[in-house]
Amino acid sequence: MWPDRRILDLVGLDHPIVQAPMVGPRAGLAAAVSDAGALGSLACAALNAEQVRSEVAAIRRSTDRPFNLNFFCHRPASPDPAREAAWLERLAPYYRELGLDPAAPVAMANRAPFDEAMCAVVEDLRPAVVSFHFGLPDDLLLRSVREAGCLVVSSATTVREARWLDACGVDAIIAQGADAGGHRGMFLTDALASQVGTFSLVPQVVDAVRVPVIAAGGIADARGVAAALTLGASAVQVGTAYLLCPEAGISPVHLAALRAARDEDTALTNVFTGRPARGLVNRAMAELGPVNAEAPAFPSAAVALQPLRQRAEAAGSGDFSPLWSGQAASLARETGAADLTLRLAEEARGMLRIRR
Amino acid sequence: MWPDRRILDLVGLDHPIVQAPMVGPRAGLAAAVSDAGALGSLACAALNAEQVRSEVAAIRRSTDRPFNLNFFCHRPASPDPAREAAWLERLAPYYRELGLDPAAPVAMANRAPFDEAMCAVVEDLRPAVVSFHFGLPDDLLLRSVREAGCLVVSSATTVREARWLDACGVDAIIAQGADAGGHRGMFLTDALASQVGTFSLVPQVVDAVRVPVIAAGGIADARGVAAALTLGASAVQVGTAYLLCPEAGISPVHLAALRAARDEDTALTNVFTGRPARGLVNRAMAELGPVNAEAPAFPSAAVALQPLRQRAEAAGSGDFSPLWSGQAASLARETGAADLTLRLAEEARGMLRIRR
Repeated sequence: MWPDRRILDLVGLDHPIVQAPMVGPRAGLAAAVSDAGALGSLACAALNAEQVRSEVAAIRRSTDRPFNLNFFCHRPASPDPAREAAWLERLAPYYRELGLDPAAPVAMANRAPFDEAMCAVVEDLRPAVVSFHFGLPDDLLLRSVREAGCLVVSSATTVREARWLDACGVDAIIAQGADAGGHRGMFLTDALASQVGTFSLVPQVVDAVRVPVIAAGGIADARGVAAALTLGASAVQVGTAYLLCPEAGISPVHLAALRAARDEDTALTNVFTGRPARGLVNRAMAELGPVNAEAPAFPSAAVALQPLRQRAEAAGSGDFSPLWSGQAASLARETGAADLTLRLAEEARGMLRIRR
Repeated sequence: MWPDRRILDLVGLDHPIVQAPMVGPRAGLAAAVSDAGALGSLACAALNAEQVRSEVAAIRRSTDRPFNLNFFCHRPASPDPAREAAWLERLAPYYRELGLDPAAPVAMANRAPFDEAMCAVVEDLRPAVVSFHFGLPDDLLLRSVREAGCLVVSSATTVREARWLDACGVDAIIAQGADAGGHRGMFLTDALASQVGTFSLVPQVVDAVRVPVIAAGGIADARGVAAALTLGASAVQVGTAYLLCPEAGISPVHLAALRAARDEDTALTNVFTGRPARGLVNRAMAELGPVNAEAPAFPSAAVALQPLRQRAEAAGSGDFSPLWSGQAASLARETGAADLTLRLAEEARGMLRIRR
C-alpha cells in the first residue's frame, strides 16, 4: 500500500505517478503511461480542437485507463505591435545570419487559452482528469468541466497559489517547485526571484491545503518519487525523464541536449514565449536573456523566434529552440515509457518498504 | 540504524544532523546541538582569533561531544575605492533619511578568509570538524588542518563543485541546494540563475562523489530530514530552523521576520555583502536589488550598509538588515536546540521506519 492513496483512489491509478503534460509529445506517450497504470497527459495548449479529438481517439485505441488533458488558461495580453516589432528588430541580426527575411509571415501553432469551444470538446470527450496551467479558467467553464465528470487539477508555485486553488475547489494541486522544467505555472505572482524549490515547496503546500498534492520539479528517478512522498505528496509528476522516452518523439536537438545535460545547465527564461520557463541554456537564452524585459507578452515572444528555430533545427542546431528541462535530467534513465513508469513505482516501493 | 552511517561513524554522532554555521549565534547554540548528539557548528568568519578561542572554550565547558568550526575561504578582491564610493553614494538617500553622516568611519567585524593565523588557532584547538565555505583554502593550510586531526568538509552548489571537492580529498560534501538560506557556497560558477534546487542537487551529487553527502537547503522538519536521506544524503544540515531556537540569540527584527516568513518571501541577493545569499526580502533588497551589479565585491558591500542597519535596528526595523532565511522557515517549530535536534531525529526515524 502506498502511504497516501488519495490520488490513486480518486483517479483510479496503480502508481502515484503523473506524466507531465508537455508540448511536443502526443498520444503515444500518454497512452503508454496510462496503460502502465500511471496517469498519462496530453498537452493541448498547442493543439486545435480537431487535433485534440484525434489524439484522444488514438489514446483510447491503446488503453481504457484514465488520462489527463492539459490546457493553458492565461489571460491573453492585448496585442502590442510596437513591442513585437521591437522584439523582431532585436532578433534581426540572427535573421541576417541565418539568411531569413524578417518580413516573411510566420505560421504559429495555437496557444489560445482554454475557451468555450475547447470546453465543448472536453465535455464531449470526458477525460478522467483535466489539468490547467496558469491558474484556472473562469467559473462557467470550470463548472462545465466538473459537470462533465472530469477531475480538475492545477499547478501552484507558492503556498498562496495553492490556497487559492484549494478555495476554488480543485480536486488536487500540483506543487510545481522551481526545479521543474517548462513553463512556471505562476499566476498570482510574477516574482521570479522568489520562486520556491521543490524540496521547500511540497511540504508547505501539503500543510496549507485540504486536497491531495502532486509534487513536481526535479523528480526523475525512484529516489525522487520516494522523497516526494516522504515530504507529504500524494503523487508525483515527472516531466523531463519522460521526454527521454522514445514515445515522446522530441526533436533530435532537444534529445541531444537532454542527454548531455548537467545539473547546472538550466535557467528560467522568458525569451522563448514571454512567460518564464526552465530550459537548458542555449545561444538564445545566453545572448537574449535568460530573462529579457523586452520580450513580448506570452505567447507572442515565440512568433519572431519561430523562423530562427526552424532554420537552425534544420541545420542540426538547437541555438534558438526552447530546450525545456528540469534540473535533474541527468538522473533520467533512457527507456520506454511503460518501463520507466513501472521501474519508478517498483523501486520507490522498495525504498519506502511498501509491500505490493 | 540509520540507512547510511558514514557521517555518523566518521564524526561520532548519534543523529545525522548538522547545525548550519551561521554568523550571529555563538557557543550556546553549537554546544546545545552537539550535546544532543548532532553536530553543532560555530561560524568563525566574523570572529577574530581570540573570539574563536573563547567560544570554543565555552562549547567545551558545556559538552565533550564533537563540534564544527566553519571558515570562509574566498579569495579577497582587490580594494576598489571608486566602486565603494559609488555604492556609498547610491545609499546616500538612506543616510539622509535616517540622519546619518556618510563620511563617518564604520567599524566592521572581521570577514577575512581563513589564513595562517587562524590555521594556527585551529591546530591548537583541534575541533573534530572544520568546514569551509566558498571552496577550500590553499593546499598548505588544508594540509595543516588535516594533520591536526580535523575532518574537512566544504559546500558544493553544483555537481562540478562537488567533484572538485572530492578530488581535493575532503571527508564529506555539503550539497547546498538553492533553497538554502545565507551565502551560496558557489566557487566555480557565478551563474546565479543556474543554481540548483535541493531536491535536484542532492541525488546528482550523491551519484558523482565517493564521500558522504550532507544535504542542505529547505530542511526544517522531520519530513525534510527523511526525504533528504531518501535522496541519498548521509546526513542533513539545518540552518533556519535553528535560528528560531532561543540559543541562537538572533536580533528581534530577524526573529520577527522569520516568524512571519512565507515560502515566497525570500530571494537571492548580493546587496548586503557583495556575494549572493538568500534572505527574506526587505526594503534594502527590494529597492537596491535583489541583485545589484554595482555592489562592491565581498565583503565590502556590507561596510556602507552597516550604519543604516544599526540605526534601523535600534528603531525596531529590519529594513537594512540581512534577514537570512531558507525557503522553508514556515516549517520550523520554535523550541530549544536540543529538543529540536531530538525531535527531528526521532520523527525522521519514525518516517523511515528505523528501529532505535
